[in-house]
Amino acid sequence: MIRNEMNQWKHLFKLDPEKPISDEALEAICMSGTDAVMIGGSTGITFENTVDLLSRVRRYTVPCVQEISDMESIVPGFDLYFIPVVMNSTDSKWITGLHQQAVKQYGHRIPWDQIVTEGYCILNPDCTAARITDSHTALDEKDVAAYAKLGEQMFHLPVIYLEYSGMFGDMDKVRSAAWSLESARLFYGGGISNLEQAQQALEYADTIVVGNVIYTNLPSALETVRAVQRV
Amino acid sequence: MIRNEMNQWKHLFKLDPEKPISDEALEAICMSGTDAVMIGGSTGITFENTVDLLSRVRRYTVPCVQEISDMESIVPGFDLYFIPVVMNSTDSKWITGLHQQAVKQYGHRIPWDQIVTEGYCILNPDCTAARITDSHTALDEKDVAAYAKLGEQMFHLPVIYLEYSGMFGDMDKVRSAAWSLESARLFYGGGISNLEQAQQALEYADTIVVGNVIYTNLPSALETVRAVQRV
Repeated sequence: MIRNEMNQWKHLFKLDPEKPISDEALEAICMSGTDAVMIGGSTGITFENTVDLLSRVRRYTVPCVQEISDMESIVPGFDLYFIPVVMNSTDSKWITGLHQQAVKQYGHRIPWDQIVTEGYCILNPDCTAARITDSHTALDEKDVAAYAKLGEQMFHLPVIYLEYSGMFGDMDKVRSAAWSLESARLFYGGGISNLEQAQQALEYADTIVVGNVIYTNLPSALETVRAVQRV
Repeated sequence: MIRNEMNQWKHLFKLDPEKPISDEALEAICMSGTDAVMIGGSTGITFENTVDLLSRVRRYTVPCVQEISDMESIVPGFDLYFIPVVMNSTDSKWITGLHQQAVKQYGHRIPWDQIVTEGYCILNPDCTAARITDSHTALDEKDVAAYAKLGEQMFHLPVIYLEYSGMFGDMDKVRSAAWSLESARLFYGGGISNLEQAQQALEYADTIVVGNVIYTNLPSALETVRAVQRV
């Protein structure tokens, strides 16, 4: 099933429902050879713009997952649902609070076998996600490794996600997290805007997530897929 | 191994290293037929008083586990280490913060196969633990069930711990948590001071934790063990 396939994914494109994308660009993304398309974002996400984008991606066979940032925007029909748990947030709302409310509201209707909990560690202090979640981003390599290990060993999370949204990150920290993990998958996201950066991140991360460059330089975004075809 | 045995435990005595206990009382506790002795508390716990109590319990064959409330008081030589994660704390320090610091400090020396992460839900607003952790205790049955399910499904915690420290709790909430769980063990602690209350809590909880009454009414504490011998 798709949940097991996820353990083979090395490249994801992350589409922001708030940002317009042409049919041609979307086709190029979906047919690029990426392992899956993730739909989500930090702000401006609604049920309407999410369901619209999902229906457009569904014309292609690529797996499509939702990364949930807001209960109101959950849309049925995705292959998997990724739930961020912001391990380095100072506000428990982003670790257990909103999640508890969602479980309370949706209860028995939650398809747990389609839920993938992601242990986020947000590392770019200037990104929207860091500001919203009031994350403690002044972390050294050992801190990042400890968060990764915590997520894997104490919370048994299947995915640890190093998020540098908006900037290309410190690969020493990615390596440090990678070396601390045994079985969880290490996702890296943030600032990958060309093939070389994709290759660098894949030296340590199991899976890279390519987002913003889709909207600023599509050919360069598409080229990042070659990083996983070579690996 | 002892970690699997833990899934059979129905009754624990919880000893507070800060409180004096006579050799006779300690022998009665350790020989009572309880499944294990847990050592820990919310305040005044030190390495010295913990190691002292551990060495006294070790004269008996009963399994002995430490519930860690403070990094400074971790003592080698326990059978298992229980790590509370206070799911309903409003301060992320009690969910991931202190834990990340501990992992950073102890790193590779942590015996993960001896670590049991407990998903705490603190329900007595007046107890020390609730005050220290600034927990959100105004929870109805559905809230408690949602926290239990969250701990089990999203964080894959082996133990969900409903903590009413200092008062006997609302059994409707214990039932509600029990019904929401599939495989995690449900611990109940708080205010069990006699056999009848032990029996009531065991209607829904998998494991009961008997603490304070040891220090106020030892015969009554010892009697609670009969609840599991009957079940």
